[in-house]
Amino acid sequence: MNTSAEGFQYTPEAGLQLGLPTLGAIQPQKSITQQSHDVIVIGAGYAGLTAARDLTTSGVKVLLIEARDRIGGRTWSSNLGDYPFELGGTWVHWNQPHVYREISRYNLQEDLENSHDLSKGVNSFMLHTGGQTTKYSRAQEAELSNSALRKLVDVDGSFGRKTIPMPGAANIDAQLSKYDNMSIADRLQQVSLSEAELAVIEGFLAITCGAKLEDASFGELLRWWALNNYDMQLFMEQCLTYKLRSGQSNFARKFFDEAQGTGNLDYIFSAPITSVQHSEDSILVRTSTNEYQAKQVICTIPLNVLKDVEFSPPLDAVKLRASKQGHVNQVSKVHAEAANPELRSLSSTIARPFDKLTYTFGDGTTPAGNTHLVAFGSSYEGVHLQGEEDINDTVRALQRFAPEMNVKRVVFHNWSRDPYAQGAWEWLRPGMIADRAILDGLRKRQGKVHFANADWSFLWRGFIDGAIEDGARVALDVRKEILGW
Amino acid sequence: MNTSAEGFQYTPEAGLQLGLPTLGAIQPQKSITQQSHDVIVIGAGYAGLTAARDLTTSGVKVLLIEARDRIGGRTWSSNLGDYPFELGGTWVHWNQPHVYREISRYNLQEDLENSHDLSKGVNSFMLHTGGQTTKYSRAQEAELSNSALRKLVDVDGSFGRKTIPMPGAANIDAQLSKYDNMSIADRLQQVSLSEAELAVIEGFLAITCGAKLEDASFGELLRWWALNNYDMQLFMEQCLTYKLRSGQSNFARKFFDEAQGTGNLDYIFSAPITSVQHSEDSILVRTSTNEYQAKQVICTIPLNVLKDVEFSPPLDAVKLRASKQGHVNQVSKVHAEAANPELRSLSSTIARPFDKLTYTFGDGTTPAGNTHLVAFGSSYEGVHLQGEEDINDTVRALQRFAPEMNVKRVVFHNWSRDPYAQGAWEWLRPGMIADRAILDGLRKRQGKVHFANADWSFLWRGFIDGAIEDGARVALDVRKEILGW
Repeated sequence: MNTSAEGFQYTPEAGLQLGLPTLGAIQPQKSITQQSHDVIVIGAGYAGLTAARDLTTSGVKVLLIEARDRIGGRTWSSNLGDYPFELGGTWVHWNQPHVYREISRYNLQEDLENSHDLSKGVNSFMLHTGGQTTKYSRAQEAELSNSALRKLVDVDGSFGRKTIPMPGAANIDAQLSKYDNMSIADRLQQVSLSEAELAVIEGFLAITCGAKLEDASFGELLRWWALNNYDMQLFMEQCLTYKLRSGQSNFARKFFDEAQGTGNLDYIFSAPITSVQHSEDSILVRTSTNEYQAKQVICTIPLNVLKDVEFSPPLDAVKLRASKQGHVNQVSKVHAEAANPELRSLSSTIARPFDKLTYTFGDGTTPAGNTHLVAFGSSYEGVHLQGEEDINDTVRALQRFAPEMNVKRVVFHNWSRDPYAQGAWEWLRPGMIADRAILDGLRKRQGKVHFANADWSFLWRGFIDGAIEDGARVALDVRKEILGW
Repeated sequence: MNTSAEGFQYTPEAGLQLGLPTLGAIQPQKSITQQSHDVIVIGAGYAGLTAARDLTTSGVKVLLIEARDRIGGRTWSSNLGDYPFELGGTWVHWNQPHVYREISRYNLQEDLENSHDLSKGVNSFMLHTGGQTTKYSRAQEAELSNSALRKLVDVDGSFGRKTIPMPGAANIDAQLSKYDNMSIADRLQQVSLSEAELAVIEGFLAITCGAKLEDASFGELLRWWALNNYDMQLFMEQCLTYKLRSGQSNFARKFFDEAQGTGNLDYIFSAPITSVQHSEDSILVRTSTNEYQAKQVICTIPLNVLKDVEFSPPLDAVKLRASKQGHVNQVSKVHAEAANPELRSLSSTIARPFDKLTYTFGDGTTPAGNTHLVAFGSSYEGVHLQGEEDINDTVRALQRFAPEMNVKRVVFHNWSRDPYAQGAWEWLRPGMIADRAILDGLRKRQGKVHFANADWSFLWRGFIDGAIEDGARVALDVRKEILGW
């Protein structure tokens, strides 16, 4: 298997190492066989892969340019000890239409598995508040989160259904604007939660938005809730339960390999874009060492990164403003492989004051028989985990969930310090949905430059699903321009 | 707008008329521009349209042969008085991945509307039992159906979640087999329902499966329940609430027009297939007047019709047996346009003894300001509605729901007597899912003949979603064979 220079792995024996094996690393890193290209696709995350696949399978000549040495963008998996660790986007569900259509089309339905297994181990939820630890059953945990979240989202006497009846609709009403102008912290002030409800839900929300609750839009939470069918159990099932047994990079390869199979795909990896220059007849895309030309460009650079690329003529004012504001999600995600089979069914939250990790749960059993736990931390000052600085910090944060945790391996990708992501999944600041210029503006083409990314998709915005949705949307526009149909 | 020879319309002024205007009727009925074709697609319902589109957009030369004079198969709409009446498949939802992916790709998200409007009119549920009519609020109706259905599906103490945790998985366990071997009537014997619960749920179930409850698999009901996220409100929202404002035939045209735009699509309508003959190198498809040849064939003929086409070599034993058994859904669907604005928010069920229509609800307001009601009837002996025999029968059955109903127009398609459908959406007999040979066998290709239909899709089997899923599945297989990628 090829290796990416990205991602970190730690074992007590070998210490901290940069770089991970992955099916997503492409070798050779460059393949240019065509004289000219109709379309340059910038970025090989799911938006770019979908666009490149949809175009090449229709006979359009595509050059895919990717800054990293691998496909997948904010979603990729590393196989370690014959087990895939998901460094970024992970869980999917058949209620997510764009990603499931692809799972189905690539015949991966049977590759989906429920990553939870409550039949093995402690089957407990441990809530750490200050110096105290309280043990609940998983059912009690579900009930606490459910009751807390229902109080939060019940803005209209119908648990958000009246406010967001159709989560994929572009037109939002005044009522939603009102809630989008609030932060999650603002909303928490309005409702009355028990001490336990507050302790459970704050930690969960902090890693759902990956930000200080004061900085995160409450409108986004209502939107997630609506996408999850206004139900806490479905929220967990759709966002944190079903993953691909063979890993996301295997899935992403299906798109890449299909595109490559057409003979219409050229590509260059490890080639960060420096500028995109639009002239009368064509577009010039520059990397530090080269320049490439095409009739159209699909730019899949994420919201938080767009501002760093030079566009000529410049990026329109709305896009630039939105990118400078940026979304707020700077979540930390860490995998632990632990020699504690009993932790397989653990779930645990660290309540305020937050630690560097605030939420974990058993996410699998490795072939070695160890428990795989996935943990998340938020970006509050003083507790924003930067795992590569001192790995002991991470191990200590993991052991706060369970002091007996015998950590055999740690795996992570630091998305906050990743220059091509500058954050994790999209979660907008208060007011950014209510300001309708922003999302509409981000979706708009500029001349022959088209913009596609999960960060501004219509339905599952911020999810793998949204990336595929937006890649397909833009690919169809571009195909019509190039081929006339 | 073109006119199809299919479907019936009745107005008091003009009486009963055969044939309806529809965007789905294609003119001219024949267009053959290619010397030869790589693939013949038999059938222009959503499975065939999806397959034809996916192939032609990849450069494969396709000949589409359709028995009817229109696209859409068991799903089509007629625009009457600037209002689309859905003769077959109607409602869709963003939790249906394959159809929503297309709605999204064709930029029809804003075309989705909630067809219910409880703000106008009586806002009541009328339950007719024997000679009595009881009036409930719509909330009471929801609660009655919910409590009844939850008792029925709670086979495992988790309302079916343990029995069908993943409705799209092909592997079913012994527990599901057990329930699939039961009929809905069998299951009703096992649970204790109140008189009102029974009255409400029997009528609803009879039109959900479109058959005698003794003939309909209870496994199918569990499957629908799982697809609807184990929740009655979501069941209603996903199956009976959101429809396309511009009508299904407008949607189907998007597929057809995209395929036609490629220049790779030839087609013949009003050309029923008589035989499919497989030789060493190619396939010969015969209609009554002509024969056509291709390298591969995609046959999208529905389960209940397959048995009527001559295959050489013959249809394999499993497919033939399954087609002879057939699915049981022979539901009647009737639209009424009524000059009663107060019925906009009516819902009504006729309990046993069933009448020719057993369930209705307000489904829209026409531009003329009339109420559009949609009504369904089951196929019990003596009450199986055949609307074209005596239209007064239909009007009388409609007025049983509300004697004051002033019927200005009736619109319907008799799917039971339609030789190319021989029924409505798929609902299998008891034991047909448990007999794993059947669904697996229906999905299997025979040499260069491939079979695609909603009747045997994996996820939303029997729905528009399933047709698109299966068309895409088979198109990808065929493309690989033809193009090598």
